[in-house]
Amino acid sequence: MKLDRHDKLLIIGDSVTDAGREYPIGYGNGLGSGYPALVDGLLRTGYPELNSVVLNVGIGGNTVRDLKSRWQKDVLDLKPDWLCVMIGINDVWRQFSTPEVIQSFITLEEYESTLRELLSAVQPNVKGLILMTPFYMSGQEDPMRSMMDRYGAVVKRIAGDYGAELVDTQAGFDRMGHHMIQSSLSNGWDHVHPNTTGHMVLARGVLNALDFEWNR
Amino acid sequence: MKLDRHDKLLIIGDSVTDAGREYPIGYGNGLGSGYPALVDGLLRTGYPELNSVVLNVGIGGNTVRDLKSRWQKDVLDLKPDWLCVMIGINDVWRQFSTPEVIQSFITLEEYESTLRELLSAVQPNVKGLILMTPFYMSGQEDPMRSMMDRYGAVVKRIAGDYGAELVDTQAGFDRMGHHMIQSSLSNGWDHVHPNTTGHMVLARGVLNALDFEWNR
Amino acid sequence: MKLDRHDKLLIIGDSVTDAGREYPIGYGNGLGSGYPALVDGLLRTGYPELNSVVLNVGIGGNTVRDLKSRWQKDVLDLKPDWLCVMIGINDVWRQFSTPEVIQSFITLEEYESTLRELLSAVQPNVKGLILMTPFYMSGQEDPMRSMMDRYGAVVKRIAGDYGAELVDTQAGFDRMGHHMIQSSLSNGWDHVHPNTTGHMVLARGVLNALDFEWNR
Amino acid sequence: MKLDRHDKLLIIGDSVTDAGREYPIGYGNGLGSGYPALVDGLLRTGYPELNSVVLNVGIGGNTVRDLKSRWQKDVLDLKPDWLCVMIGINDVWRQFSTPEVIQSFITLEEYESTLRELLSAVQPNVKGLILMTPFYMSGQEDPMRSMMDRYGAVVKRIAGDYGAELVDTQAGFDRMGHHMIQSSLSNGWDHVHPNTTGHMVLARGVLNALDFEWNR
Amino acid sequence: MKLDRHDKLLIIGDSVTDAGREYPIGYGNGLGSGYPALVDGLLRTGYPELNSVVLNVGIGGNTVRDLKSRWQKDVLDLKPDWLCVMIGINDVWRQFSTPEVIQSFITLEEYESTLRELLSAVQPNVKGLILMTPFYMSGQEDPMRSMMDRYGAVVKRIAGDYGAELVDTQAGFDRMGHHMIQSSLSNGWDHVHPNTTGHMVLARGVLNALDFEWNR
Amino acid sequence: MKLDRHDKLLIIGDSVTDAGREYPIGYGNGLGSGYPALVDGLLRTGYPELNSVVLNVGIGGNTVRDLKSRWQKDVLDLKPDWLCVMIGINDVWRQFSTPEVIQSFITLEEYESTLRELLSAVQPNVKGLILMTPFYMSGQEDPMRSMMDRYGAVVKRIAGDYGAELVDTQAGFDRMGHHMIQSSLSNGWDHVHPNTTGHMVLARGVLNALDFEWNR
Amino acid sequence: MKLDRHDKLLIIGDSVTDAGREYPIGYGNGLGSGYPALVDGLLRTGYPELNSVVLNVGIGGNTVRDLKSRWQKDVLDLKPDWLCVMIGINDVWRQFSTPEVIQSFITLEEYESTLRELLSAVQPNVKGLILMTPFYMSGQEDPMRSMMDRYGAVVKRIAGDYGAELVDTQAGFDRMGHHMIQSSLSNGWDHVHPNTTGHMVLARGVLNALDFEWNR
Amino acid sequence: MKLDRHDKLLIIGDSVTDAGREYPIGYGNGLGSGYPALVDGLLRTGYPELNSVVLNVGIGGNTVRDLKSRWQKDVLDLKPDWLCVMIGINDVWRQFSTPEVIQSFITLEEYESTLRELLSAVQPNVKGLILMTPFYMSGQEDPMRSMMDRYGAVVKRIAGDYGAELVDTQAGFDRMGHHMIQSSLSNGWDHVHPNTTGHMVLARGVLNALDFEWNR
Repeated sequence: MKLDRHDKLLIIGDSVTDAGREYPIGYGNGLGSGYPALVDGLLRTGYPELNSVVLNVGIGGNTVRDLKSRWQKDVLDLKPDWLCVMIGINDVWRQFSTPEVIQSFITLEEYESTLRELLSAVQPNVKGLILMTPFYMSGQEDPMRSMMDRYGAVVKRIAGDYGAELVDTQAGFDRMGHHMIQSSLSNGWDHVHPNTTGHMVLARGVLNALDFEWNR
Repeated sequence: MKLDRHDKLLIIGDSVTDAGREYPIGYGNGLGSGYPALVDGLLRTGYPELNSVVLNVGIGGNTVRDLKSRWQKDVLDLKPDWLCVMIGINDVWRQFSTPEVIQSFITLEEYESTLRELLSAVQPNVKGLILMTPFYMSGQEDPMRSMMDRYGAVVKRIAGDYGAELVDTQAGFDRMGHHMIQSSLSNGWDHVHPNTTGHMVLARGVLNALDFEWNR
Repeated sequence: MKLDRHDKLLIIGDSVTDAGREYPIGYGNGLGSGYPALVDGLLRTGYPELNSVVLNVGIGGNTVRDLKSRWQKDVLDLKPDWLCVMIGINDVWRQFSTPEVIQSFITLEEYESTLRELLSAVQPNVKGLILMTPFYMSGQEDPMRSMMDRYGAVVKRIAGDYGAELVDTQAGFDRMGHHMIQSSLSNGWDHVHPNTTGHMVLARGVLNALDFEWNR
Repeated sequence: MKLDRHDKLLIIGDSVTDAGREYPIGYGNGLGSGYPALVDGLLRTGYPELNSVVLNVGIGGNTVRDLKSRWQKDVLDLKPDWLCVMIGINDVWRQFSTPEVIQSFITLEEYESTLRELLSAVQPNVKGLILMTPFYMSGQEDPMRSMMDRYGAVVKRIAGDYGAELVDTQAGFDRMGHHMIQSSLSNGWDHVHPNTTGHMVLARGVLNALDFEWNR
Repeated sequence: MKLDRHDKLLIIGDSVTDAGREYPIGYGNGLGSGYPALVDGLLRTGYPELNSVVLNVGIGGNTVRDLKSRWQKDVLDLKPDWLCVMIGINDVWRQFSTPEVIQSFITLEEYESTLRELLSAVQPNVKGLILMTPFYMSGQEDPMRSMMDRYGAVVKRIAGDYGAELVDTQAGFDRMGHHMIQSSLSNGWDHVHPNTTGHMVLARGVLNALDFEWNR
Repeated sequence: MKLDRHDKLLIIGDSVTDAGREYPIGYGNGLGSGYPALVDGLLRTGYPELNSVVLNVGIGGNTVRDLKSRWQKDVLDLKPDWLCVMIGINDVWRQFSTPEVIQSFITLEEYESTLRELLSAVQPNVKGLILMTPFYMSGQEDPMRSMMDRYGAVVKRIAGDYGAELVDTQAGFDRMGHHMIQSSLSNGWDHVHPNTTGHMVLARGVLNALDFEWNR
Repeated sequence: MKLDRHDKLLIIGDSVTDAGREYPIGYGNGLGSGYPALVDGLLRTGYPELNSVVLNVGIGGNTVRDLKSRWQKDVLDLKPDWLCVMIGINDVWRQFSTPEVIQSFITLEEYESTLRELLSAVQPNVKGLILMTPFYMSGQEDPMRSMMDRYGAVVKRIAGDYGAELVDTQAGFDRMGHHMIQSSLSNGWDHVHPNTTGHMVLARGVLNALDFEWNR
Repeated sequence: MKLDRHDKLLIIGDSVTDAGREYPIGYGNGLGSGYPALVDGLLRTGYPELNSVVLNVGIGGNTVRDLKSRWQKDVLDLKPDWLCVMIGINDVWRQFSTPEVIQSFITLEEYESTLRELLSAVQPNVKGLILMTPFYMSGQEDPMRSMMDRYGAVVKRIAGDYGAELVDTQAGFDRMGHHMIQSSLSNGWDHVHPNTTGHMVLARGVLNALDFEWNR
């Protein structure tokens, strides 16, 4: 287990992370019903002696551009020991759903450079970083999935460059897909917002990145 | 792992089990937000190849007397492979909150004889039984806790007699209590309705009873 | 235009057809916001002199088994001149989302035999039949889509046997898919419930089956 | 078809245009349930290869005076390729419903001069203009209808002067009126807010102005 | 003033009469906000010494066919001293808004014969009858208005035959129409549901039929 | 009838006047359900040729001190031809319901001097003033009624000094009290907020002050 | 203190007693916010060793006629040790607010004979009876108050005949009236539904009837 | 009785004091449903001649730090004759429920020094102070209870130093606990928010501190 006693794990992302959390900062019973709450519940029952603190600052609809605008207040000011980031789903989705006249698209270039800029700002102050790829619960032939994979590839490259723990969420969902239809892991079959089982896929990824042990 | 491929695990109980499930039968995204959903999520992500089915028929406010009235329809008719039962919290609570003129109390004797009657009716038709003790998130000096322990002792005795898997939920909460205040595992500090971490205590108990392995 | 003056066109199906209609029978401003309302609006503006009547008796969640249970009351008793049927999406969906313990699955055999039974009962009394295939807005590699195609193939075969007009809805969505991501034609990207553009694909299919002239 | 690939068609007006759109800008599934959504649905299904973009900035209760106050933000700043305007119903209605002490009436002179001013500002920057007359679903003997016709006559004159495409909406409703009572094309029989069929009359007008081919 | 001390005036009709009354019988503060409440308020302030009782049993959507089905319970059983009836608006409206497949239309013949049947049943038991014509707030060239006039003519003929007081409501609205647009006397400009001023037109008619005096 | 064609009658007061009116200015269908709407309805049906305009700017809870704070905006700026004022109920009520620590009481002296100040400011610009006494629907032995009478006496004296039309509302309710219990003219028997009959008492007073004739 | 350990005190009445209680039987936290809850709170804090049980079966709008219809189920079947009854306010109120055509009035004779009948049925089975007079928070010159006093006089006479404890609630409110306006003890100044202070007047009456010692 | 005629008693605290009061200042019917309303009701019925005024400015969630931020506006500006303070429950609770990263904990030192600062500011201007200890309805072995006792000990010490009346609320609940389970005096068994009986324990404490005579 990589976490030390009383370590603060801050999780930031979009609506998948938000999952009904309380504002301005989700913690304890206010973590929402997504993977941050599952991570917290598994951490606290598996390692009660650590008294670790999980904080959730996900916001629905966020892109990497939105993270940049609130990085100081929602990340740096909270002085986390560990930071976990999952972003990119909306960066991709908007290109299929929103005419560019409304908001300029976030290109792969802007996505990568912004993410690097944010991580460079926070890395000197944390014990560890966890990067989660964005995902789309569908086969690779789906055009949204294939664009998502390109953004995920950027995350993998950055994780290597920054020595961050990588959670390949898409691989996690693909593995489940051998036994059931992937979109059945989402609410309302929308391929994006996980149900409890889908969130458990994400929580497992985060905890495995922390060398979590179940049988103690 | 004791479950076979496609096994149906039926969970019955009171509001702790119900936890916002769908009616008439909770399953999939309709399992609610309690330990049945966590069990399902951990089972499906840990053993996706089993395609196990978890069904939730908990109903808020139920006592063992209520279970008896719906045992045929909600247990026997559903033909479960495994049955998991947690009952007794309301049996105890009513003795502190409701004047007996409203409804006769459920004595320890009625509790035990009814539970035995129900299990005898279902045992020949299932692969296995899981019995969970009722609990109260408090120290043993609390009068409600101490009465709950007496009902829990009955459950333990019955589990032995029927060869059922026992989940000692109270022991699980007591263990957590070495590191944090027990009632912090409930919503609104009411000592009874678990938050996500409290439900994870219960889910761990159920899964350990099934010889669940995390690292596979 | 195959419709005569004052002809009644009755449309039956599931939630795609229902689309917020009024009960017990949707007509006029109570047709809902789906393709039945678009068909009605295009018919009435294109052929105002026909004073045709469109009736909507779709019900969310219906399978072919549900249609059978209400065929007398919702189809035969209303004495339509033309009947339009689209069913099968839930027949397929349930096999991915609902454990069979809840409700026995509707096999391809039951689907076909039931549909034939219903059409045989109504055919002698109507001027014409329109059969619409069920659909799933996704590429063919998606497992739900490929099962849907098998149910759609049954509809095509039956249409031939009964001399019904066929609306190949899946082909309509596939054609759109050359220019945009198919699921963008659904609300909330759920691949099943069409937005206005998706419903227009269906309405075009129905009207073309009736030899509707667009330029009048 | 006058639209080129990727052309943006901006529609501005009052509550008839708004029709429940999203704010601040309606597009895609947020176009509302009125003629802008029908135009979009017909455009996208008839000419999917154009990938045209329809934007809706109608606001309930607006008069030409209100359009002026938001012309920069809601028209010029959005840089449309085509602009479609329908205004005047509230300009007329207020003269029957609101004492002038509350707000000075918009005379025919103010209506005409303001409309000209707005069109002059935008014309140099667009490929084309579509002007829709205001309407009232009633016979010409109705005093509100006859005043509406005078405002409609201004729109026709201006369309000629500016070389805009004209949609004579009132003529469209009058044509329907030969076969049914006009107000049956409105919701709640209020003669102003169209139901789906009434909105289809408007959508047909807009699309015909664009040389939309129905049979492709 | 034709009413005697303690006389009960029962008013029956459709939504114009109902106007938000209480159920099962509207009286006192439960008369709703329509002409029955205005009649009551003017009667009680003009002739407080009479202590007259006004009862409202109007029901929204009612036709003469509906009145027949509840005549025993809502009229005869209440033993009124005076009975006031206004019915027919929905009988006409349905012929414009509802396809006959839903419900058979109420012809002029059924309207007249049913009304006569109802009045014959009650006349021997009351001191007096007041018949109000149905109305439509519009010029005579409107097709719904002209059909309404034919139903109104039936009411006038019946009033003569039964010696009932006649309230020519349409004439009342036409008189107002010399000075303002008639539909401005309705809520939401729907030409049917009166606003307070429109209800005052009706209340004046009823009170004048009773030889009400203002200056006493 | 003292009103001339197109005269504006502005009514200001407290919750009795407000009666659910629209904001910022109530008129037409937005006059609320109190005496201003009844005055408007009776004026428009009795004297339709006048096309008079009634405006309602009553605000719940207002005292004379509140009127002063909005006199410029809600009275002078609206340039009424006739002004009708009823104030004082809350000035009295607060002395029974609110400890003075919350808000200093409005003494009879402040009441009179403020009212005179307001009327002096508006009198030169109007054709006529109508002053209505505050009231309490109860016998004179009630302590709130007897204090209300002292405030009413001030209104009568001021009406004489300013040559205003006086409406003695308390006398109106007392007259009704000979035949029924006064508080039955209020909603919920609270003795203050009139029901329709109670508002008709007030409307009669205002109209009689204007020499309104019923039989024309 | 007349109550013995574990005695059940059953309170029945109208909306004053109901006061928001839970159904079907109010007890503990479900007693509502009226005098039954205050009696319970004062009993339990003053005499915690008694563990007395207070039950509330008041129902809004009840008259003595309604009590009769539910006496078996709501009084006799619950086997109270002590019974407390307050009824009559609606019996009086209806005579002022409801035309007799709706429901026949409850005369003083019916009131007295029914009350005697009910008490005779229960007296042999209880340790004691408490009778509370109905009340109206107003001076005696109010016509509703003076009729209420006549019904109260019946209660006093019956209390004497049956050896019941009498609570003269009207005397309690009159005493308060020497220092404040009586209706200020009601919510919304309606003279009937007490606020907390008004309910305390009633609770004091009940407790004094039981020889409650305040200083223990 | 220490209160003089017309004395103002101001009560400040957290959600236990707030109890649904009105804002900005609770008084009369706006005192909420907690002990301030019970104190007011008992004072007004026991000593009606005093016409005392009780004001409630409790705010849910408040700690002593929050009281400091509003002391000028909510205490000093209101110029109370008597001040009653109960604070500390949230100061303790937060240490169990909120990670310190969200808000720095309020140590016993900050608690004591802040409370002294506030009391020093107000003491010269009041006739008397009442200090209530914070409480937790549980046995002393509960960790939250034992921390609460340490904060309560500070209140006792301060009361001695300032010559304030002390209300030992915890002792009050402990006394009740000899006869019933303490948490049964809270709503929803949360051990913190009292039900009516629990609030009566607090009200008795406050009134006894004022030498309230119960039998008058």
